[in-house]
Amino acid sequence: MSDNTSGIKERIAKMKLVSPYMAASKEEVRNGALLAIAKVLKEHSAEIFEANHADLDAAEKNGISPSVMKRLKFDENKLADVCAGLEQLAGLADPIGKTTLARQLDEGLTLYRVSVPIGVIGVIFEARPDALVQISSLCIKTGNCAVLKGGKETTNTNRVLFKLIYEAAVASGLPEGCLIQAEAHSEIDELLKCHEEVDLIIPRGSNAFVRYIMDNTKIPVMGHADGICHIYVDKNNDTELALSVIADAKTQYTAACNAVETLLVHRDIAADFLPKLKKCADKNGFALKGTAEVGKVIDCEVIDESEFKEYLDLILSVKLVADVDEAIEHINRHGSHHTDSIITTDDAAADKFMQLVDSAGVYRNCSTRFADGFRYGFGAEVGISTSKIHARGPVGPDGLVTYKYKLIGNGHIVGDYASGKRSFNFKDI
Amino acid sequence: MSDNTSGIKERIAKMKLVSPYMAASKEEVRNGALLAIAKVLKEHSAEIFEANHADLDAAEKNGISPSVMKRLKFDENKLADVCAGLEQLAGLADPIGKTTLARQLDEGLTLYRVSVPIGVIGVIFEARPDALVQISSLCIKTGNCAVLKGGKETTNTNRVLFKLIYEAAVASGLPEGCLIQAEAHSEIDELLKCHEEVDLIIPRGSNAFVRYIMDNTKIPVMGHADGICHIYVDKNNDTELALSVIADAKTQYTAACNAVETLLVHRDIAADFLPKLKKCADKNGFALKGTAEVGKVIDCEVIDESEFKEYLDLILSVKLVADVDEAIEHINRHGSHHTDSIITTDDAAADKFMQLVDSAGVYRNCSTRFADGFRYGFGAEVGISTSKIHARGPVGPDGLVTYKYKLIGNGHIVGDYASGKRSFNFKDI
Repeated sequence: MSDNTSGIKERIAKMKLVSPYMAASKEEVRNGALLAIAKVLKEHSAEIFEANHADLDAAEKNGISPSVMKRLKFDENKLADVCAGLEQLAGLADPIGKTTLARQLDEGLTLYRVSVPIGVIGVIFEARPDALVQISSLCIKTGNCAVLKGGKETTNTNRVLFKLIYEAAVASGLPEGCLIQAEAHSEIDELLKCHEEVDLIIPRGSNAFVRYIMDNTKIPVMGHADGICHIYVDKNNDTELALSVIADAKTQYTAACNAVETLLVHRDIAADFLPKLKKCADKNGFALKGTAEVGKVIDCEVIDESEFKEYLDLILSVKLVADVDEAIEHINRHGSHHTDSIITTDDAAADKFMQLVDSAGVYRNCSTRFADGFRYGFGAEVGISTSKIHARGPVGPDGLVTYKYKLIGNGHIVGDYASGKRSFNFKDI
Repeated sequence: MSDNTSGIKERIAKMKLVSPYMAASKEEVRNGALLAIAKVLKEHSAEIFEANHADLDAAEKNGISPSVMKRLKFDENKLADVCAGLEQLAGLADPIGKTTLARQLDEGLTLYRVSVPIGVIGVIFEARPDALVQISSLCIKTGNCAVLKGGKETTNTNRVLFKLIYEAAVASGLPEGCLIQAEAHSEIDELLKCHEEVDLIIPRGSNAFVRYIMDNTKIPVMGHADGICHIYVDKNNDTELALSVIADAKTQYTAACNAVETLLVHRDIAADFLPKLKKCADKNGFALKGTAEVGKVIDCEVIDESEFKEYLDLILSVKLVADVDEAIEHINRHGSHHTDSIITTDDAAADKFMQLVDSAGVYRNCSTRFADGFRYGFGAEVGISTSKIHARGPVGPDGLVTYKYKLIGNGHIVGDYASGKRSFNFKDI
């Protein structure tokens, strides 16, 4: 075991004991830290951009693709965005310390449920410097300690950003050790073993990477592996609207988990709709792969339904269904419970779809690409969850809190209630 | 693989497709089912008691201890209790279908967050017939499908109860296949493999059993293994009150996870308090094991702090601390984040303890034994969670729901917002 590796385990163990003090930090201190971070990032922009140039030079030498290069880049625009985000987050209501239940159990015995931070969160994220700022600021806002491991392609930028963020946080009054940066890839495996100390892992990245995390830790994992989103075009629909939404959901950002991958079309409208879809696909530069039945109506690659998958590319699978019920069953069976949309003018069909499709997001007449914390107005997003436990869909500040029960009595004992000497007298207050 | 084993996997796969229909069941239907179950249980009491006698006879032959026999027994009193519980549950507010967020994102684009059932829940519970009724009724109330596996010592009782419950549920309009009973122990391992279908596992039972479940499934697990609860007696306290609470927390139900296991006492009051504690222990029939420092003041078995553990027996570990800070650190380091109580007349010490102790329940001047869904006024309890993810502490109906986001637009596409043609206009409605 290298010194570096034993280092992170010890630091996480220490963080566990720091976390109650981080949780107890005052709202003003946390919001003050967010504003202080925005300030130092602006003041040290030259240093940040210099580090980012080193990362970009190295990436270019390694032949990284232009689309990835765009994500690695941290320039004036991205700095302005993250600083605006920090200032917005500082202005949001405090998610912790909220009393969500206050109940008298009996005379003099009062129960409170109060929102508190989760504690220690490990976030493993892609090579995107703005992600480091967003994630650490969300954790500060919510009073959580965080272990942050970013993608290696932005090591230099992350190191500078982390140093500035951490120092500003501590100078603002947050406890030492409230944030840890992990840099070595081997530290991920060390982190995954810390189930006594770490309360939640949030992995972001490829399907295979997220599955690896889920399969190799006892710590609860929040996130998503697959993102197989569907659009179902119902019998009664506005065709223009349908095609516009499909093109947006497929092409606006192909690599996103909320891009549409499978299109289901009501069989009764196939003869009219599919040729229009084909024209739309050609115009917007995406390919169609259809079942044999689809291939009889339009020219497309014919594939078996079992070959439908998450392409993350300019390709859309197409299948015909008999009605909204068959669409629902297909989505519940083959989808990834992420985000699915129905295009219809029929209220009854829409209600049925939105009730019965078992996904984090069920949409009507709009693009699946809206599944995002910023677009939902959460101020920031730490990831999207397809789990049904804890948080579901885009996860903002509210998803990073839990609660504790406080019970205040005056010598109350259970024996008195078991014997019948006293009885409960529940009253919400 | 036996037919029985392959059977449960197939039935769970079918349940996954039934679960959206269970989730869509109307409040009246679910509450009607609860009342119908109470009715048939009363009508078939003779049949239930007969099956229970068979279980009790077998248990007696196997030399089961009298305290366990008490739990296996299902008599008129327990039937009356579970029927009262069913009727109470039917009267509680519906936990699903509640809109917890309604927000206009832009003109004509509206986001709703609505509470929905988790979906498919697997519950593995101890041999207690009343637990089967409580758990299945909580799942019905919350619109969840459930796979139920009870302890083998009550197989006959469980079989009769399950048949009556399931038939009454379906006759009341709930979908076929909404509840499954697992009987063979081998079916537990089959259930643990169904991570594609089962959304949550709730194991109840011994520490070792819960750990086995946690270590052998990819399904999220809600529950607790250890229950090492603490009481800290602060410098300023009402001694009578302290002793009464300690005796209750230790002896009222020794085998419970919320019984106290470790007592921390402020060093400044040790000379006065420990002899009184010793008298109290002798009178109430529990033994004290103390650190060397404690052993110098009173006659007790001296053990090392590292030997402190969950006894589930009439034994209490005792240690002295310098102040509330040391008590907090001890609890956060060595506790199980279940329930911990401070006995004090000092408001500042109480506030500090309740803020910084990182447990599901933090109490002042009352017994740790209050950590229970019924005593919190939840109507019923499916278990107690020491995890910080999803639900924490006693888990009632609110802990068995999640939410989904519904987004309703009129052809809204993300491209328009990315290009600046439109901009978000968030407004909570």
